[in-house]
Amino acid sequence: MLTGMEIAVIGGDLRHIEVIRQLAKMDATIYLLGYNQLDDGFLGVEKTTFEAIQAEKLDAIILPINGMKTNYEIDSVFSDSKLYLTEQWLSRTQKATKIYTGISNDALNKIVLNTNKELIELMDRDDLAIYNSVPTAEGAVLLTIQHTNVTIHRSNVVVVGFGRVGKTIARTFHVLGANVKVVANEEELRARAFELNLEPYELLDLKKVVEDADTIINTIPAQVLTADIISKMPSHVLIIDIASNPGGTNFEFAEKRAIQAILAPGLPGLVAPKTAGIQLGNVLSTLLQKQLEEREGGNV
Amino acid sequence: MLTGMEIAVIGGDLRHIEVIRQLAKMDATIYLLGYNQLDDGFLGVEKTTFEAIQAEKLDAIILPINGMKTNYEIDSVFSDSKLYLTEQWLSRTQKATKIYTGISNDALNKIVLNTNKELIELMDRDDLAIYNSVPTAEGAVLLTIQHTNVTIHRSNVVVVGFGRVGKTIARTFHVLGANVKVVANEEELRARAFELNLEPYELLDLKKVVEDADTIINTIPAQVLTADIISKMPSHVLIIDIASNPGGTNFEFAEKRAIQAILAPGLPGLVAPKTAGIQLGNVLSTLLQKQLEEREGGNV
Repeated sequence: MLTGMEIAVIGGDLRHIEVIRQLAKMDATIYLLGYNQLDDGFLGVEKTTFEAIQAEKLDAIILPINGMKTNYEIDSVFSDSKLYLTEQWLSRTQKATKIYTGISNDALNKIVLNTNKELIELMDRDDLAIYNSVPTAEGAVLLTIQHTNVTIHRSNVVVVGFGRVGKTIARTFHVLGANVKVVANEEELRARAFELNLEPYELLDLKKVVEDADTIINTIPAQVLTADIISKMPSHVLIIDIASNPGGTNFEFAEKRAIQAILAPGLPGLVAPKTAGIQLGNVLSTLLQKQLEEREGGNV
Repeated sequence: MLTGMEIAVIGGDLRHIEVIRQLAKMDATIYLLGYNQLDDGFLGVEKTTFEAIQAEKLDAIILPINGMKTNYEIDSVFSDSKLYLTEQWLSRTQKATKIYTGISNDALNKIVLNTNKELIELMDRDDLAIYNSVPTAEGAVLLTIQHTNVTIHRSNVVVVGFGRVGKTIARTFHVLGANVKVVANEEELRARAFELNLEPYELLDLKKVVEDADTIINTIPAQVLTADIISKMPSHVLIIDIASNPGGTNFEFAEKRAIQAILAPGLPGLVAPKTAGIQLGNVLSTLLQKQLEEREGGNV
């Protein structure tokens, strides 16, 4: 249980409904900022504003998955007005107040540092990245069915990168009957791809591997699908880039060659917000419970 | 090869581009009716009209997958004017002229009978139904990802009917990690479902089976998802009905209960027209080749 914990959820999307539902069930006291258009009511949950909230009492702040924009704006799909996190407001919170976000950036890192807070980047966690890989893979399946005129079954699919998300995507397309080639530089990852009956290749082979591809899915957050590589692809190819913004594709060059290339980072929130929200809520409740135990341990 | 065969393709959709491409490659002489907006040119293929074509010379007529409407209209996505097949025109063709369609209806059966032609319904063929089941299953995956807020992975999916298409759909959702229940009355089909590690149920059990379903996919062309059954479903359920028009769902009752229910026959032409067209072309070339051999055998 989270009885006695005071938590501010600032901004968010459909996933945060599940997060709020779970934390409220665990008896946390929850303040919502940027939720004025949300109709659902939850017990123990109060809609409020930066002006009205008692920042001093907060144990935790939950930000959207994408954290904060460089101009300090915080995204909320439930608000009709803009929402900004200021250093001034943040400095009013306790020393022990922890900030939970999906990913961070320089601007967020800076105000967290200046106000001497602890920032937890949830998407850095292997468990959440693996849980999220399931809706991400289903999102890649959705985009492939939508944007090609052939079946995934028996089509040639190249998955670039074989980490936490790449593994799930490669396996998913494999079980749907695609011929899946996996491109990874690490020898142990290629061994794992072999074990799963996928065709492993080194990044050096990419130029050849893309030649007969129908769909190429990049998961590596670095320029791997360069102009040089794209120039070797057939004209009907579909590129799906799920590496975090700005992706690993030369989109300008792809457009020049009239090749379909889609930058699709946040697929879980789009294709399965409920599932993704439940998983986010699970991880957050565990972390908040630990935080509460530490606080109570410290108080003894 | 189909050298010497004269074939009229009347109406059609993207799939017919692949059919035309294949038949032209096999050296058939092809006349296109209802293709005035098609830009692609193929060798040995001529765009024409009912007035201009020499009906007497035709060996075969290829109609769209959905055949002909009850008002004699023939669908073509490549025409900006309406296209009608008349008994008068059809009676001008030779006695041996065969008509190939996907499915037929009373109106088409009647003019075929009155003009003494042979009609071949391609979708009656097991091979084509099984080939088509692959893009149909991918289409069901697409609709499920689009219209639910959970992942297919670990969701509860009920597949009603376990025939040529139901088998493929159940297997596809199973490999994506769904909990798949299969409803079929035939004992041998339930045995097959068991062998595939799916959960088999009788139609009598349907009321109970739907209670915790996230997605229900019907493949039986008879009213199986009745008001009585629908009233047992949870409110968030998604019904996908791929049984041929009018499906097997009481759509009116589903709408009254605000349950999402989608009638989706023709998925192959929507999600993978190229793959579906190649398979249609393969089956048609085999049949036309047989027809040519019979004719030449008869001439000897």
